[in-house]
Amino acid sequence: VTIRLTRLYGRNPAKTGPVAAELGIGQTVTDWRALAEAPDVDIVANAATNALHGPLTLAALELGKPVLCEKPLSMDPGEASRMCSAAAGIPAAVGFNYRFVPALALLRRLIQRGQLGQIRHYRGLYLQDWLGADPRRAKANGSGTVSDYSHLIDMLRVLAGEPASVMAQTTRWHSEADDAFQALFALPGGGTASLEASRCATGWKGRHHIEVNGSLGSAWWDMEDINRLHLLLARDFAEGLGGYRDILVTEADHPYLAPWWPTGHVLGWEHTFTAMWRAFLTAVLDGGWDPALATFADGLRSAEVAGAIYRAAAAGRTVTLPAGTSPPAGRKPDAGRPAASVMEDK
Amino acid sequence: VTIRLTRLYGRNPAKTGPVAAELGIGQTVTDWRALAEAPDVDIVANAATNALHGPLTLAALELGKPVLCEKPLSMDPGEASRMCSAAAGIPAAVGFNYRFVPALALLRRLIQRGQLGQIRHYRGLYLQDWLGADPRRAKANGSGTVSDYSHLIDMLRVLAGEPASVMAQTTRWHSEADDAFQALFALPGGGTASLEASRCATGWKGRHHIEVNGSLGSAWWDMEDINRLHLLLARDFAEGLGGYRDILVTEADHPYLAPWWPTGHVLGWEHTFTAMWRAFLTAVLDGGWDPALATFADGLRSAEVAGAIYRAAAAGRTVTLPAGTSPPAGRKPDAGRPAASVMEDK
Amino acid sequence: VTIRLTRLYGRNPAKTGPVAAELGIGQTVTDWRALAEAPDVDIVANAATNALHGPLTLAALELGKPVLCEKPLSMDPGEASRMCSAAAGIPAAVGFNYRFVPALALLRRLIQRGQLGQIRHYRGLYLQDWLGADPRRAKANGSGTVSDYSHLIDMLRVLAGEPASVMAQTTRWHSEADDAFQALFALPGGGTASLEASRCATGWKGRHHIEVNGSLGSAWWDMEDINRLHLLLARDFAEGLGGYRDILVTEADHPYLAPWWPTGHVLGWEHTFTAMWRAFLTAVLDGGWDPALATFADGLRSAEVAGAIYRAAAAGRTVTLPAGTSPPAGRKPDAGRPAASVMEDK
Amino acid sequence: VTIRLTRLYGRNPAKTGPVAAELGIGQTVTDWRALAEAPDVDIVANAATNALHGPLTLAALELGKPVLCEKPLSMDPGEASRMCSAAAGIPAAVGFNYRFVPALALLRRLIQRGQLGQIRHYRGLYLQDWLGADPRRAKANGSGTVSDYSHLIDMLRVLAGEPASVMAQTTRWHSEADDAFQALFALPGGGTASLEASRCATGWKGRHHIEVNGSLGSAWWDMEDINRLHLLLARDFAEGLGGYRDILVTEADHPYLAPWWPTGHVLGWEHTFTAMWRAFLTAVLDGGWDPALATFADGLRSAEVAGAIYRAAAAGRTVTLPAGTSPPAGRKPDAGRPAASVMEDK
Repeated sequence: VTIRLTRLYGRNPAKTGPVAAELGIGQTVTDWRALAEAPDVDIVANAATNALHGPLTLAALELGKPVLCEKPLSMDPGEASRMCSAAAGIPAAVGFNYRFVPALALLRRLIQRGQLGQIRHYRGLYLQDWLGADPRRAKANGSGTVSDYSHLIDMLRVLAGEPASVMAQTTRWHSEADDAFQALFALPGGGTASLEASRCATGWKGRHHIEVNGSLGSAWWDMEDINRLHLLLARDFAEGLGGYRDILVTEADHPYLAPWWPTGHVLGWEHTFTAMWRAFLTAVLDGGWDPALATFADGLRSAEVAGAIYRAAAAGRTVTLPAGTSPPAGRKPDAGRPAASVMEDK
Repeated sequence: VTIRLTRLYGRNPAKTGPVAAELGIGQTVTDWRALAEAPDVDIVANAATNALHGPLTLAALELGKPVLCEKPLSMDPGEASRMCSAAAGIPAAVGFNYRFVPALALLRRLIQRGQLGQIRHYRGLYLQDWLGADPRRAKANGSGTVSDYSHLIDMLRVLAGEPASVMAQTTRWHSEADDAFQALFALPGGGTASLEASRCATGWKGRHHIEVNGSLGSAWWDMEDINRLHLLLARDFAEGLGGYRDILVTEADHPYLAPWWPTGHVLGWEHTFTAMWRAFLTAVLDGGWDPALATFADGLRSAEVAGAIYRAAAAGRTVTLPAGTSPPAGRKPDAGRPAASVMEDK
Repeated sequence: VTIRLTRLYGRNPAKTGPVAAELGIGQTVTDWRALAEAPDVDIVANAATNALHGPLTLAALELGKPVLCEKPLSMDPGEASRMCSAAAGIPAAVGFNYRFVPALALLRRLIQRGQLGQIRHYRGLYLQDWLGADPRRAKANGSGTVSDYSHLIDMLRVLAGEPASVMAQTTRWHSEADDAFQALFALPGGGTASLEASRCATGWKGRHHIEVNGSLGSAWWDMEDINRLHLLLARDFAEGLGGYRDILVTEADHPYLAPWWPTGHVLGWEHTFTAMWRAFLTAVLDGGWDPALATFADGLRSAEVAGAIYRAAAAGRTVTLPAGTSPPAGRKPDAGRPAASVMEDK
Repeated sequence: VTIRLTRLYGRNPAKTGPVAAELGIGQTVTDWRALAEAPDVDIVANAATNALHGPLTLAALELGKPVLCEKPLSMDPGEASRMCSAAAGIPAAVGFNYRFVPALALLRRLIQRGQLGQIRHYRGLYLQDWLGADPRRAKANGSGTVSDYSHLIDMLRVLAGEPASVMAQTTRWHSEADDAFQALFALPGGGTASLEASRCATGWKGRHHIEVNGSLGSAWWDMEDINRLHLLLARDFAEGLGGYRDILVTEADHPYLAPWWPTGHVLGWEHTFTAMWRAFLTAVLDGGWDPALATFADGLRSAEVAGAIYRAAAAGRTVTLPAGTSPPAGRKPDAGRPAASVMEDK
């Protein structure tokens, strides 16, 4: 099977033209409906502006075409819910690419196998300084940090489970929306979580940082050193040799590493997309479903948590989150996943 | 002037006896009042159990004797307030020793000189695992993490100013009191702060971690590598060479370093006490006041913030903190500091 | 211009067939001469086994075809010298890809601009453990560490200049060739350098580490955190704020970064090849020459230094290196570089 | 038993007077023989200038008085040999204090128990910049780096065993003696070692760095983060979780830690002297001998290795080291250690 990029959507042909030429894409279109409906489009990669995540995805799904939609699935839980329904029986994923960071996939595997025990504390940070460094980049109608950094919410759910309640505050310096948020969560098993994002954290360019403390072990990871998992196993203290292990996640038997370079030759951020797309195309063509792939139910749940963060911040009080109707993300594959979707072999 | 350790208080002479012998202290006493009243006691170092912080300190102050009282000053804001009043005209300090970590004193100096600009974000962590590692160490009537780790509150005030409001959650696994807390604060200038402490954070032995993001620069510090300040100055990005500087704070012109080893020979945690006591004894003997020394007003304010954290956690909503009646800690020395207290020259 | 992969050479069609299919390469060949001579081959990427570096490259150059040959250019200085002569007037480069690590390219730029001053010390390490971990991987007729890790020699020349003399030792555990070497060099300006490589350094997977101490500043880099340059400028000590800056080399104005992701989104090892090939193809098509591209003269000089290391180790004494006939690598582009080579526009 | 500091030697009473007063030392002397012979001096701490290490130590030993002599024992192997003979039957130690760094003592314990397997590679660095930063500090008749940084030689012997041969180079910028040296060693079991010291390595204040690669594991340590041992155990790779463990060596059962602060509260450089003196005084008073204490035989061997480094550098060839007459340092305690020396109980 060969996958070809057949059409590229964009409102401004002066911009899409050169890109399409460079990537060898035959046609550009300025009408997103036309893209969804084109007969030579079997799969839609929806990386359009946030406002089109819903409409374009729904249009494709109505025609039975699989979609990998960038996050956030929608900023409107109602729309996200409709997207979920429309995706029944059709392969559809949300672009939560950090699930495919090998170090984080290894961490998830360890947590699922119980090697960290019960989760006591979770901390997620996503700090950048681009807005503080250049306030002109604030746009009047831009989105806020809760949805821009919804990776934080998704990874919390993937690694620590569905939060039960939230309290939060947001701050604004240069935008009309929030430029930073902090949120505290209670986890179902008695653990706690905190998330923080900012686009005014001077000096940090991409400090996506995750830390988990479990009853049997702890771990942390930082995007700036993306191939490294720092893992502590409490059992190592028994012989006086406890300490965070500096694991370079480049071994062939580490997640998503088998096809790549020899051990010790590090991967970059873009490999998260490569692995995510490989998983999604495999799902479309062969019918399996890598549990790391975020479903639309995951996207909906993220939108619900994002909404709860804003409500909690506005009200200045704790907001209870409804129990998830779906199982915790990543714990087991969706039952109703279609065996396969029809694709022409080109 | 020679300072002599003349008496050691402790309820159990079987324990205090050997310690006194090892340290060359002439007498042990089992009655804390007798200690305060002893004619050969001119200065009281109150490192007794938390419940005696108030009574012993008040007894000494009533006799006009200077006291350096361990933190927390009191867990009862009312008592803390009485201690403040009793300290009028008498040198009295709270044992917030982290102010004397050279790296943190350097950070404070940089903040006060405006080199980090306006504070946008502050993060303080104090993570340990001793209780998770050995739940038998929980005591029925022990104190909780908010007061046990009140260093977090104090350093927030010292470095980022008085918080304006707080929301918080606490968690409990093995104790009757809280075993972990997280709190979010709004800072007066529009900044935000978060504090977190736990005694069940597997693998961390003494992760006291502080991070500050200002409009012109950022910095972080970690107790496990106590001599290091990681400092970022936004101006360094102008030539493409921005990055956190890994400053080994052991130069002779760094704070509190002049009397010590040659550059590059690191200090340990105990030096924070050495520097604090030197500052306090200098205050008693010579009448000055190192602005790093925590006053009883600082101790009171810490107790008030700790109380607000508990109220916010219990109510599940934001609690507004009253404007401090004292100036922000560390910004200027107290006006009414006594010129000196009478000490015999031994 | 579109570059197409037209033929893939390999002795075993059962292996090359599937690879060619996956990469969309039309034909496989088992005769390397046929590859060089094929009319639809305009440029040769010589990543064949070390023993074919010379023969295949010479065959292509004789037909006037540009070659990018993997390192080592040749293990025989005589052959390397013939390859240099054959490359006159034809774009020809050696695959020293570490020159294209953005962090190292930034370091080179800083050194060339004099920001580190005179080089006092240089240290290069390349530590791996694959042979110690699995001694069965030793092959009877395999090459030794001096040529396998010739990147060390090349980067020394690029960053610190041509060494003047060398002393060395080699060690062997599992192979017939050396499994580790250490070498000490005198640099022309009075500085010193040391290189060490091992395939039995337990626990290290790809510790390619470079450190430079100059009179005005120092820097270090490590492949395991490939995007980071640790840079110290002595001038920063003047205000008590000296320390290694932790520079995340992902800014658009950092070397080779302009076409890639937003700041803070890290690159992997493979990008060094992408940048090297872009530079080489640009040289072939447009006639320029990125000074980071290693010439065959560089490859020859590396072979000479490698030979001197072995002679010094065998003799147990210092070996003087002849002054380079070419200018120090990377200091200025070769004068006689051809304006362009003829390429059909496909 | 109480140890009192009774006399302080120094040529200039204007300098020694205030120091003696501050430390409560009763008398100062300007004649080192008088110090050795004074009836109230039972033990000599010889931290005098290097040139007096021999004479003062010999004078004390002739009177049967125990001596802890600062390193280097002597720069003259002949004198060092006489000092060894004079020390027969008298407790005598050399001030190699790095053996008492808890992290290095833990490493030594692991190596002795075989947990790192056979030593393959050893690397020792001691980099400083004080001379490069201020060339006026060069003194015409000062000592060179080989003896100034003889800690490097001692720790090599302690951790990796007696070297069998050496090649070396030295460099000079501002002094009459060497300002930097690099040396390569062959180890008896087939391993290799390298040592390097410089006082012109810009930016490094106290980079004493040690790394060991064994067949079963590896470790590294750095003085700037003195409490940390980075330890890798090859067995951890079996489950895909291999990586350097970041061990904070502050547990009560770590070497020399029992008497100190709670876990996680770091120690400084001065504790190495505290532990060394405790061990030496215990040896004098109780007759045991902590194997970490360096004997005069160790001091002699260090001088021999230092001499060989200089000879190798001058000759530009490998110099073979005579097999040590004593067992490898630290592998077993000296057999002939006296049971006790007579000390009055004050």
